[in-house]
Amino acid sequence: MAQQPRTTTLPKRPRIYLAGPEVFLPDALDLGRRKAELCAAAGFAGLFPLDASLDLSGLAKLEQARRISRANEDLMRSCDLLIANMTPFRGVSMDSGTAFEIGFMRALGRPVLGYSNVTPDLRQRSLSFRARGIPPGDSDRPDVEIEDFGLADNLMMAIAIVEAGSGVIIHAAKPGAEMTDLSAFAACLEAARRLIPNGN
Amino acid sequence: MAQQPRTTTLPKRPRIYLAGPEVFLPDALDLGRRKAELCAAAGFAGLFPLDASLDLSGLAKLEQARRISRANEDLMRSCDLLIANMTPFRGVSMDSGTAFEIGFMRALGRPVLGYSNVTPDLRQRSLSFRARGIPPGDSDRPDVEIEDFGLADNLMMAIAIVEAGSGVIIHAAKPGAEMTDLSAFAACLEAARRLIPNGN
Repeated sequence: MAQQPRTTTLPKRPRIYLAGPEVFLPDALDLGRRKAELCAAAGFAGLFPLDASLDLSGLAKLEQARRISRANEDLMRSCDLLIANMTPFRGVSMDSGTAFEIGFMRALGRPVLGYSNVTPDLRQRSLSFRARGIPPGDSDRPDVEIEDFGLADNLMMAIAIVEAGSGVIIHAAKPGAEMTDLSAFAACLEAARRLIPNGN
Repeated sequence: MAQQPRTTTLPKRPRIYLAGPEVFLPDALDLGRRKAELCAAAGFAGLFPLDASLDLSGLAKLEQARRISRANEDLMRSCDLLIANMTPFRGVSMDSGTAFEIGFMRALGRPVLGYSNVTPDLRQRSLSFRARGIPPGDSDRPDVEIEDFGLADNLMMAIAIVEAGSGVIIHAAKPGAEMTDLSAFAACLEAARRLIPNGN
């Protein structure tokens, strides 16, 4: 009987969806590459949202948005967990699209991890926001309650991340480096390795 | 043979999760009741998030947050669709917890509808935010891209709502009434009736 050819199958690396507002940076692809390299070194495959890499030329704006949404939803469904950059973005809270993505993965029952590169909690940031004067059209008002749970952002995201074991990892980045400092991201990868032991 | 007793079973009304930052208002329960009444008149059961109605006395802050999160996630899983108040809240975008909830229901494959009580789109609001000066710790920077799809908020939420058939319903509420004006919410209920015909 002829000998069967030996096939080597590499173990599938767990896939991490890299959520965050970095997709809007001019050097988005570069930063995505740096994150993916850190993932690879920890035994994971890091997948960056596809906003910046789809060919959308010639498409109407709504169709462009639809393609990005579909690509990112498909990418999330293909991933085993998510790490979110929850650093405040254009307001008191994290990027709203990233909040959507945390909810999406949470509903799929997959672990969500997250970090923020600023230290004041949601309550402190909400008070600072008010102190600057509520902008026209904003639905905040002086008598609106401010969450006071000592959490980094709205409890729905924060608790989803607490449930994954680590809580939101907080790091004080230097001013101007809130988007690019990856030390808290690296700490999330350590937490991911504790959570999914088949990372290296 | 004895006649079986006749039982009358009312048709189950489709359940709508009422997402939005109204939970933080001093009159949250009252506003929730008004929304639920509009739902009932349209043939739906309106379910308000449970932040304001759980008994959390004597619990540590983290445990309080955990109970609220669990109650709201369970409530979402019990609902057939979601209507979100996407009016800007403490920044350029909608309430981040509401964004989480849109993503959660989207991942479950349930229709999501939404409205905003201000008319400028995400791009216009982002430009206004910058014009006021980027606050310390915020990860916006002058070279960070601003989404330009003509949508009411980040495309992940906006497209999820477009896919449900209606798109985000926009209404110009009077200044100060951004949280309480329910005419756009009523328009969402009309859209929900077109989507789920077993509403009255």
